[in-house]
Amino acid sequence: MRVLGVDPGLTRCGLGVVDGLPGRKARMVAVGVARSDASHQIDQRLLAISVQLDEWIEEHAPDTVAIERVFAQHNVSTVMGTAQVAGLAMLAAARRRIPVALHTPSEVKAAVTGSGRADKAQVQVMVQRLLALDELPRPADAADALALAICHLWRPAGALGAPQRAPGSMTAAQRAWAAAEQAARARG
Amino acid sequence: MRVLGVDPGLTRCGLGVVDGLPGRKARMVAVGVARSDASHQIDQRLLAISVQLDEWIEEHAPDTVAIERVFAQHNVSTVMGTAQVAGLAMLAAARRRIPVALHTPSEVKAAVTGSGRADKAQVQVMVQRLLALDELPRPADAADALALAICHLWRPAGALGAPQRAPGSMTAAQRAWAAAEQAARARG
Repeated sequence: MRVLGVDPGLTRCGLGVVDGLPGRKARMVAVGVARSDASHQIDQRLLAISVQLDEWIEEHAPDTVAIERVFAQHNVSTVMGTAQVAGLAMLAAARRRIPVALHTPSEVKAAVTGSGRADKAQVQVMVQRLLALDELPRPADAADALALAICHLWRPAGALGAPQRAPGSMTAAQRAWAAAEQAARARG
Repeated sequence: MRVLGVDPGLTRCGLGVVDGLPGRKARMVAVGVARSDASHQIDQRLLAISVQLDEWIEEHAPDTVAIERVFAQHNVSTVMGTAQVAGLAMLAAARRRIPVALHTPSEVKAAVTGSGRADKAQVQVMVQRLLALDELPRPADAADALALAICHLWRPAGALGAPQRAPGSMTAAQRAWAAAEQAARARG
C-alpha cells in the first residue's frame, strides 16, 4: 500500500510518499516540495503546482492520495490558494481513478504523536522515528506530508478519509493501533 | 474578442461566452451551467466540473477566461468548493495558454449596472438588455457568468484583470470598477 501525502500550499506544497500497511513499519519512498513563484500570476502558479503534482503521481503511482483537509477559518490571507491547491491534488488523483482521502490536521497529529494538538517539531520528531530516518525529514515543511501519509496508512479499518468519529474515548492514534492489531490478528 | 465568463460553484458553475470589443455591442454565444452531484465525493465532483470546463473551452475557444474572484469571507459553508472550482477554471485556461482575468463581484455589477451594489435581478435585466436577448438569460444563475464576460470586454483599456490604477477622466462606472478593485486588493 503506497500513499502520497499532500500538504497543500501555493508557495510550498509538501509531498511525501510512504509505503506500509496498518500495524507494519512504514517506509519513506520520497519527500519533497512542489513550489510556485510568488511573483507570478495565480493561474500560472496553479499550473506550475499542477504539473509537479502530476509528475509525483506518475513517478510514484500511489494507491491513495491523502490530502490535508482545508477549512475556511484557516489563515485568511493564504486559505484561497491552499484550498485551490488541495483541489488540484484531488483532480490529479481523480483523473487517474486514484482514491482520495482527506484528513484534518488534528487527525494527522493524533496519528503520529497521540495528541491532536502536538506542535510542528513534535510531528517532525515522530515522523523521523516512525520512518526510521537518520535525521529529521527535510525539507522541514514536507514532514507534514509524510505524517499525512502515515496517518492514512494507520487509519482505523474502514475509514477512507471520511471524518473519523469512531465511538468511545480512544485517541485517533489509539484507534489506529487497535485497528492495526485487529487487522494483524485477522491475518493471523 | 471572445470571453468565457465563469461564476464558480461546485453544485452549479455558471458559464457564459460573449463576443465583443470595448465600446461595441456584445453578442452572446452560449450560456449554461456546469454541475456536479452533491451526493458524490468531493474529488469526483471536482473532476466532473473540470471535464465540463474543458469541454466549454474546447468548444468555444475563448481568447480570455474571466473568473469571479473568490474571497475568504464569502459564505463559509461553500467557499472552499467555490475557490476550488475557480482554481480548476484557472488551471484549464493556463494549460491552454489562455489568459485568465479575475473580477470581483462589485466590479462585475458596476460594469453592467453602474453600481457595485446592484442586486441579482438588476444584473440579470441589464445582461438581457446589453446582449439584446429576447428574454432574461436562462438559467438565471448563469447571468452572472455573462455579466463577468461583459465586464471583462468593457474593462478600461489596459486592465487585464490585474489591479488597474488609471487616473483622470474615468466614467462613473469605471471609477466604481477601479474602487471595487482597489478595495479587493486591500482585502486580498
